[in-house]
Amino acid sequence: MRPVSIIGVGMIPFGKYPEKDTADLAWPAIKQAMEDAGTDRDDIGIAYCGSVYGGMMIGQRTLTRLGMTGKPIINVENACSSSSSAFHQAHMAVASGAYDVALVFGVDKLSQFGGGTIPLVDEDWEISQGMLMPALYAMRACRYMHETGLTTEQLAGVSVKARAMGAHNPDAQFQKEISLEEVMNARPIADPFTLLHCCPTGDGAAAAVICAGDVAHKFEAAPIKILASDLCTGTYLTGYRDMTVPEITVRGASEAYEEAGVGPEDIDVAEIHDAFTIAELLYYEAFGFCGRGEAIRLLEDGVTSIGGAKPVNPSGGLLSKGHPVGATGIAQITEITRQLRGSCGARQVEGARTGLAHATGGGAMGMDHGACSIHILQR
Amino acid sequence: MRPVSIIGVGMIPFGKYPEKDTADLAWPAIKQAMEDAGTDRDDIGIAYCGSVYGGMMIGQRTLTRLGMTGKPIINVENACSSSSSAFHQAHMAVASGAYDVALVFGVDKLSQFGGGTIPLVDEDWEISQGMLMPALYAMRACRYMHETGLTTEQLAGVSVKARAMGAHNPDAQFQKEISLEEVMNARPIADPFTLLHCCPTGDGAAAAVICAGDVAHKFEAAPIKILASDLCTGTYLTGYRDMTVPEITVRGASEAYEEAGVGPEDIDVAEIHDAFTIAELLYYEAFGFCGRGEAIRLLEDGVTSIGGAKPVNPSGGLLSKGHPVGATGIAQITEITRQLRGSCGARQVEGARTGLAHATGGGAMGMDHGACSIHILQR
Repeated sequence: MRPVSIIGVGMIPFGKYPEKDTADLAWPAIKQAMEDAGTDRDDIGIAYCGSVYGGMMIGQRTLTRLGMTGKPIINVENACSSSSSAFHQAHMAVASGAYDVALVFGVDKLSQFGGGTIPLVDEDWEISQGMLMPALYAMRACRYMHETGLTTEQLAGVSVKARAMGAHNPDAQFQKEISLEEVMNARPIADPFTLLHCCPTGDGAAAAVICAGDVAHKFEAAPIKILASDLCTGTYLTGYRDMTVPEITVRGASEAYEEAGVGPEDIDVAEIHDAFTIAELLYYEAFGFCGRGEAIRLLEDGVTSIGGAKPVNPSGGLLSKGHPVGATGIAQITEITRQLRGSCGARQVEGARTGLAHATGGGAMGMDHGACSIHILQR
Repeated sequence: MRPVSIIGVGMIPFGKYPEKDTADLAWPAIKQAMEDAGTDRDDIGIAYCGSVYGGMMIGQRTLTRLGMTGKPIINVENACSSSSSAFHQAHMAVASGAYDVALVFGVDKLSQFGGGTIPLVDEDWEISQGMLMPALYAMRACRYMHETGLTTEQLAGVSVKARAMGAHNPDAQFQKEISLEEVMNARPIADPFTLLHCCPTGDGAAAAVICAGDVAHKFEAAPIKILASDLCTGTYLTGYRDMTVPEITVRGASEAYEEAGVGPEDIDVAEIHDAFTIAELLYYEAFGFCGRGEAIRLLEDGVTSIGGAKPVNPSGGLLSKGHPVGATGIAQITEITRQLRGSCGARQVEGARTGLAHATGGGAMGMDHGACSIHILQR
């Protein structure tokens, strides 16, 4: 397996685009990534698309509009980590030597469902019992509050931070700061969550071009190295276990750190899967950014804000940038790539050298039959 | 890239299983393939699932029921070649050295839609103009009949052959021979097709275990070598072109033959994508089994029947075995594997050494934004 680098990224501003179809959302992001990389469509050897709701052949239908035909195209669905799982496959395709350059993109249009929580599949027994995502995460929040003394007000601070960061991201679905009072007083969803503890539904697309390390010099872009590409699956344990420890992410983080040869102390910037406020705190601990019960200290001391020692979700994260599921994984990778290049303007993490992107889903925090993908990048 | 072999295959009889959910269809096929390979679930390094209509995380939801958790699992959607595209990815995962053993399966439950032609996606402009699959293939049949003088009666012979072969396959959806008169007198669908020119809707699942050539000796099964694994995409040409020449398959066949180091004359048995009668004849020509306009001679001379020089679709093909889309690609690979092992009983192609499996879809014959995957196997 040979080294692989990211040479181009792109995304459309996340939001609601009722007048566009899914393929129309995706192609501007792809064009942006290819222009960023300085690649022509003939340079691309293989393409991957991650999407949950895009429908049959969404990758092919999108690339046809760009005149990119003939090449192998593979559509990947892995819930919230669909496009990061696609990225994992693209990485393998290039690392193996089978292809020199790969395109990978993610896209979804959630506004087609009219908003609110979108059910998974008919066969999902948990969903049929009312265990929709907000409820599953809220249970974890309640348990963590019980165990650590975290208050609802402190938890609301995660959203305030997310929106403060998203305010500086022109690609974020929400680009306006909010106050603690606004979070606390929003309409209730699942105790302790109000609406503003939950990521929004929306539409979006993101794309990346990757290539073999030894051919990166052929293209204009400054390459960002992929140190680790990890994908793992939940373990659907029954019986008692600690629902506040996202085992799949703990395991994935350990595998990714080992593959990259770095530890949590080396991560300068991270994009992690903050679908709900509680998730961000639990992931601080899962990634080893702090010890058990200490997550709120990181947040309140500003460690994970811009200017802190370990900024998390400078893009605004899922809570502010948005979460059009299939697009999320590559949008995180796009943000980390831009951070490592130093091109993020007001939300730039100064001097960031090593970054991490984390997308997980398919069950609450991906813990059961979920998927978790973690990428560690370095300039 | 290192050599990769198939060490286990399995499938459930195709048919209609209204009482089962999609995951319930899949797991018996997986169990059969793993028992066939002599592999334990701990031997599997990575798993792929191909499905079109299985819904979110169908791979994970299936493998959970077998207690196979924790491993990376990727869901692939590529229309009719979903599971063969998944097989292509699994092949790359093992050939690259990243994993020693991979599981790949395909599953779909079409009976959930109640039968008839199933639309693709809302955004498909052709479908909205009434260009459903039977219509698209029927146009090609009319053109080919015009150009070559093929008659409707001769075309119906493809279905008679398919059912004659399927009659000996305990896994086929239809296991009963039919007469030319029955095909001719069935209800009309799209001229010149009656119902019996069209593959049925149905449910099914198939699975395979593959491993690196140099570790195959660890398992009980006699390995079948994968000589070529090719995946390509249509070229959506506009303007005039010959609709009776499936360019994507011609190109894929050329790539696959080159990769395998064999030619059409070396293929002892083939499973090709006979979604409609005309497709089988056009593919004889696309694969170089005969020259332009000569396909009907192969059929009528018995060349492509059991006992002929080049039996095609001994399983009964899509027309008789059935076509639960996501399952089809691996079911074809299952049949070729069994043929090369010599375990097919009354439908055995004697002495078969090299075989070919071909799944294509996503637009008529995959010619536009479709996908085509071709695998060449050898004992």
